[in-house]
This record gives sequence, structure tokens and C-alpha cells, in this order.
Amino acid sequence: MKWIQKSIVMTMTLAIFSLLVLQPWNQPYAAAAVKSNGVSEKPLTFVLVHGAWADASFWDETATELRKLGHTVYAPEYAGHGGDTQTNVTHEQITKSVVDFINQKNLGDIVLLAHSFGGSVIQKVAEQVPNRIKRLVFLDAFVPLDGQSVADQFPAPMLQAFEQLRAASGNDTIMLPFSLFRNNFVNTASLAEAQALYKKVKPEPAGPSFQKLDLKKFYSLDIPKSYLYLTEDTVLPQGPYGFHPTQSSHLGQFRYIEGTGDHMTNFHTQPKMIAEKIVMAGRD
Amino acid sequence: MKWIQKSIVMTMTLAIFSLLVLQPWNQPYAAAAVKSNGVSEKPLTFVLVHGAWADASFWDETATELRKLGHTVYAPEYAGHGGDTQTNVTHEQITKSVVDFINQKNLGDIVLLAHSFGGSVIQKVAEQVPNRIKRLVFLDAFVPLDGQSVADQFPAPMLQAFEQLRAASGNDTIMLPFSLFRNNFVNTASLAEAQALYKKVKPEPAGPSFQKLDLKKFYSLDIPKSYLYLTEDTVLPQGPYGFHPTQSSHLGQFRYIEGTGDHMTNFHTQPKMIAEKIVMAGRD
Amino acid sequence: MKWIQKSIVMTMTLAIFSLLVLQPWNQPYAAAAVKSNGVSEKPLTFVLVHGAWADASFWDETATELRKLGHTVYAPEYAGHGGDTQTNVTHEQITKSVVDFINQKNLGDIVLLAHSFGGSVIQKVAEQVPNRIKRLVFLDAFVPLDGQSVADQFPAPMLQAFEQLRAASGNDTIMLPFSLFRNNFVNTASLAEAQALYKKVKPEPAGPSFQKLDLKKFYSLDIPKSYLYLTEDTVLPQGPYGFHPTQSSHLGQFRYIEGTGDHMTNFHTQPKMIAEKIVMAGRD
Repeated sequence: MKWIQKSIVMTMTLAIFSLLVLQPWNQPYAAAAVKSNGVSEKPLTFVLVHGAWADASFWDETATELRKLGHTVYAPEYAGHGGDTQTNVTHEQITKSVVDFINQKNLGDIVLLAHSFGGSVIQKVAEQVPNRIKRLVFLDAFVPLDGQSVADQFPAPMLQAFEQLRAASGNDTIMLPFSLFRNNFVNTASLAEAQALYKKVKPEPAGPSFQKLDLKKFYSLDIPKSYLYLTEDTVLPQGPYGFHPTQSSHLGQFRYIEGTGDHMTNFHTQPKMIAEKIVMAGRD
Repeated sequence: MKWIQKSIVMTMTLAIFSLLVLQPWNQPYAAAAVKSNGVSEKPLTFVLVHGAWADASFWDETATELRKLGHTVYAPEYAGHGGDTQTNVTHEQITKSVVDFINQKNLGDIVLLAHSFGGSVIQKVAEQVPNRIKRLVFLDAFVPLDGQSVADQFPAPMLQAFEQLRAASGNDTIMLPFSLFRNNFVNTASLAEAQALYKKVKPEPAGPSFQKLDLKKFYSLDIPKSYLYLTEDTVLPQGPYGFHPTQSSHLGQFRYIEGTGDHMTNFHTQPKMIAEKIVMAGRD
Repeated sequence: MKWIQKSIVMTMTLAIFSLLVLQPWNQPYAAAAVKSNGVSEKPLTFVLVHGAWADASFWDETATELRKLGHTVYAPEYAGHGGDTQTNVTHEQITKSVVDFINQKNLGDIVLLAHSFGGSVIQKVAEQVPNRIKRLVFLDAFVPLDGQSVADQFPAPMLQAFEQLRAASGNDTIMLPFSLFRNNFVNTASLAEAQALYKKVKPEPAGPSFQKLDLKKFYSLDIPKSYLYLTEDTVLPQGPYGFHPTQSSHLGQFRYIEGTGDHMTNFHTQPKMIAEKIVMAGRD
């Protein structure tokens, strides 16, 4: 198993002992407590990083609910998405968008959360601004191992289908066919919901998902990590290639939180539930 | 993995591209919308195929709930079950019962759904009347690969136990001992519920579950498929032999819907929940 | 797979046939029915065995809820825990504490339930007083195979971390660092709940978890068994080493019941839910 790798063993062991010494839970609260599910919670600063076939508006409803709970929320846009229509962006450019956003706003003590493809982005962001991050949260997100790409996480049929869609695009993008989107990305949605959500899907720059990533530094960091998994997500087929426990296991030691839902529907139809789960994953 | 097989890759790729062209979601609704969970839904025509140790009355409560939601429901009986007490039926005869039912009623655009052993039945039915079927739904159902039997899906201890029960029957049937039924088929039921449900269990003709099935045509069809999984079902022990993700993965690309419950209880104690999940699995 | 082992096949087959003959479900109710979830239930006698880093008070809230449902509940303390501060206890002494408790109170027809490390304890208790037990319930519990220790169930990084904590203790105990407890034992708790629960955690005698156990007799017993699994438990990382289906599969045939929650939180924050699931796991 990947997580038996020596480096992860070392990371876990180091993490346990360093936390024994640091005891961050003894630090006084930095701000007044807020309420979530009737429980007093410390206000958090979230930076939410979207995935592929989406833009920063993906987080609109979830951010509203998180703010209602008393938290501060940022949802930066990144290269090749939202208003930026260039299709030949690189993983480095995408990472830079998020790093620059965090630096320019001079954010610290943040909970950096990513969905889907964004998992690989926050891995690289964490390498550049580790001291600004108090916890990383992966939400049905890819967690490539050192030297891997996001596409390396796909099972063979999915990889082949995406490679064919990429080759057929003419501009190195991948557009999701509606049937794939409807059945595997928003499987729990009604047809009307699926059609409405599909209107926001644009061709995704293919390059960044196929770039091999040097993640040696990421796997040496001891930032606390959480994995939030929605149990009906089938973008990665459940089983040996699934988001949990396969992608999540790459993290070594992590806090696990479970919700119901598929890859994209519930952020828009049940944002309160998503926000509450995000708080459970992100809090100290 | 079985699902990496070339034929499935081809099927998936073909399915994606054919759906890109066909775009069935752009077709106008054929009928007035009905309501489900507050969401407008197109009325569907369900044909429900029961499993072993059951008859068509298995669907009574679920069919009632589906009809309340505005859908049309048929639950055909098949050879060797219900009023037909012969025990030496074949898989072909069972398939013919369902095919004949569909043809005689001249049903089209149907959602063909099966429970348990019925999964292998709708695989063969789909080969004979593919043009009458808009979607196949497997509900905690067996999905043998080409050349396999239903019994080939059993782990070794279960196979041996069933072979011994079959040999001891004297008439080539398998009767479920109460303790096995109570603990593995209706594990979430109260004892009183389990006893009531057990009264309907009759010896099951053994032959059809052990027949090797030619399923080449099934695996060449591009009918959309869904798998509905109830998370406490332990008729197949969860893990490497479980209904999901093992049996479900045989389908290649499919829509996944999850509910709670065991193999047989909730159809009778929570039919509204089951009906709502069936609609989520069956709708366009 | 471990559960394909011949001995388990034999056990399962024997269990099926012996239950066919014994038909315990035909025995008249021994006492007036009680209500649970609106369903009439026979009153049960529970003996609850706690796990590591806990004492008998772990069960306080759950026992209260079970008694409200009409059941009788005992929660024996065992050697090296609660008031007994010796750290060099053996697995045999712990087992003897529970056996003596059951014998001295002359309890019979009991549902013997264990949490976590306690799973290995009730395996050995069952070997000594099999005739007093009507059902064994394992609740996110370890189920070592014959010749194994509890520590043999740990994945390598967890084993190494515990071995280092043990070596560093100076008195052959293992103390859970707060971060490990908070993120992997009470992952769904708020920080305040985690801090409150952590106050009860004391260094655990290390020896018993590393003792290899002769479990030949346990695996020859045909006492009915249940496994109750809380789906957010990550004390054992989910996947190939998880409580379910890996530890549970060691039991061979068993009744499966599923709840939500992590390893330690919900016993204190949702004891009614836990009690209802325990009844579902423990009833006839």
C-alpha cells in the first residue's frame, strides 16, 4: 500500500510527536466563539479552491452558509477559469493564482480547502505558503503522490475516455458529455437540476491534469489534514480507485468526515449540510 | 480488474460518444411532470423483477408508493415462482416469462429494474428486447460477467453452504434456514418482522442460479444503467465480493444511488424511501 | 482471504445446520415485550465491555438509554483500568475480570458486547463461559484470528507509532497524543467535546494488545455474532485494515448493523442512537 511508504510513516510519527510538543489546542481562542449545530466554534478563515469544469462561483451557496455560521470565506479564481478563457494554462499558473491571492490579502491561519482537481492545487500551494495554513481539507479531491499527475489517479477506462475527448477537442481541452456529467458527476440530481448545473460546465484545459507533479515538499510538511467524503461520489468509481479510502490514504494521518451526496449536486441543493460538514472537517 | 476489460472500455467510450450525438435530454417531455421530493419528474414506466426466495408480491408496497408518485408499475411473475410450483425451471424459462410479459403488454420506454437474482434475469431480457428499455436498474442485484453464473458471484463459504442445502433438498431446491435469513437477509428487522417475512420464503429452484450465462450481447448493449445499493445488505458479504462496488463494477459506466437498508426488510417497512431511491436511479 | 479458511467454512456450515435443528426463534418469549423504535422487543441482558484508553464509565450514557428501553445492563471494570492502576496486567487477567463478574452474578442468556480492544476480551470470555452467552456483539472492535494479537490488526505506520509511544513511556504504557485522539478517535466531535473526552484518557497498559492469543476454541464456538459498525470510525484506517469489512470478516457468518459516528464521540453525544443500534445488533 502507498501509505505504508517509509516517508509517510516518518511524517505520521513526526506529526504525532511535534503535536505533542506544540499542543495547539492549548492556545487561547483568537476570537469570540460562533455557533454551529448548537456547539460553540472558533471562527475560521476558509479559502475554497474549486475543481475542474467549474469556476469560483461553484462555492457561492456554500460560502453564504459558512458566513451565516460566523466564518470568513474566500473563493479565489484561478488561471484558465472564470473570466480567463485561455486554454493552455499550466498547473504552475493555477497554483500561482491561489498563492498570489493569499499573499496579496496577507491571509494567515487559514483553512485551505479544495474540491476535486483542486486537491492537487492546494498540495502545491501548501508547499509555497505553509506558514499561512492551519489545516488542509480535501473534499472529494485528488491527492496525487509525489511524481504523479491527477490523471494518474484515473482507472484505465476513464483515462482512455478523457484522452479521446482531449484529442477530439482541437484546443487541448476536455468537455464533459452530458450523459457522463449527469450519471457520474450529478447522479443524485433530478434531470432538471442536472440540466441547470450543466449550463455552467465549460471545456476544461486538459494540460494541468496530465502534468506530473513534484510533491516531495508537500509530503514533508506537517500541516494537519482532513478528508471530507460524500458517499455517492462516483467521479472516481468507488472501490480500488475511489476518493475514499484510496485518494484519502495518500495523506497518511488525517481527520475523516463523511457526508452524503455526489460530486457536484449538493453544493447547490444542500449547501447548509455541506457547510456544516466543512466546519467539522476544518475546525481545530 | 474485470472492468478494465477492453469490451467495457469500448462500451463506455461508445456510450459517451453516442450520447453526445443522441442528446436524449433535449427531447421534449412525453407527459406532464409529476412530483417527487418536491421536484418535478417525468412519469416513468417501471417493470420490477423480483429475486430468489420471493415472488411478485415482494413489490406490493413499493409499487403502491411508486404509483402514488405518478409512475406506472408492472411486477411480472416468472416461471417456478408465485403460483407456478415446478422446481426444475431453467434461467431461459424465467427470462421468457419476463420477455413475454413485456411483449404481450407491448411496453416501451421502460425502466427495467431487478432485485438480487433478478439482475441476471434482466441482463438476458435486455438482450431480447433492448429497444423497449430506456434504462436498466440493478438493486442489490447480481451482475454476472459473460460466461458466469449467479453462483459464481458467491464467496466460497456461501457457495459451499448453498451446495449442501441444495444436495440435502431432494428436489434440487435451496431453502433458507431461518437463522441465515434473519441474520443476513433481514438483519435490520425486528425478530417479529423477520418471522413475518420468513413465512413468505419458499424453497428456491436451484438450477437457474448455477447456470453459466452467455452475456456477450448484454455487454455490447449501450442501454443506460443504474445501480441502487442499500448499505446494510450482507447477502453478499461486504468487501471483495459485495454487491457494491464489486457486482456494480461489472456494469462499466453506471449511475450510482445509495440507500440504507438490508436485502429484504425495507421494501416492506420503508417502501416510500425505497420508491424515492428507485425514482432517483430510474429517472432520465 | 482469511474468511475462506476451512475452519470458518465449517463453523458457518455447522451453524446453519445446528440452527435449523434448534430453531431458537420458536421458543416462547421469556419475558414481557418492551418497546424499541415502536417495535415490541424481548428484554435483553447486556454485558458491555469497554476498550483501551477507557474504563467502565465509558458506557454510562449508553447504559442509561438501554435501561430506558427496558433492558438490563452490566458494565464490568477489568484489571488495569478504572480504580486499578497497575500497568503490568495481562490479557488473561483482563479476561478473568469479566468472567468472574459474569460468574459471580450468575448471569445467563446474556448479550456480551465489546468496543474496540474489548473485542479480543470477549473472544476469550466466550471460550470460558460459552453457555452463558446468547449472542456476541462486536462494536468497532478488534477480532484477532487464532494466534494473533490486537496489535497484529494495525497497519504498519500505526504499529510503529504505538511501539514508539510504548518505548518512550518508561512504564510499558501507551498514552494517546491529543492530536491523534482528536483527529482519529473523536474526529466528528467539536474541539470542546474532544477536550472534555480527552480528560478521561489515561495511559493504557501496552502488554495485552501485543499478546498473541490462542483463539482455537473461540473459532469452534457456534454462538451467534453481530458486528455493529460506525461509518466514520478511523482508529483503524478505512480500507484494507478497517474494522468493517476486514475485522468483521474474521467472524465468518454474522449479523451486520451500521450506524454513523466515530470511535468514541457518539457514545456520549448520541447515546440514544447508539443504544438503538445496540438493540438491533443484540436482539434475537
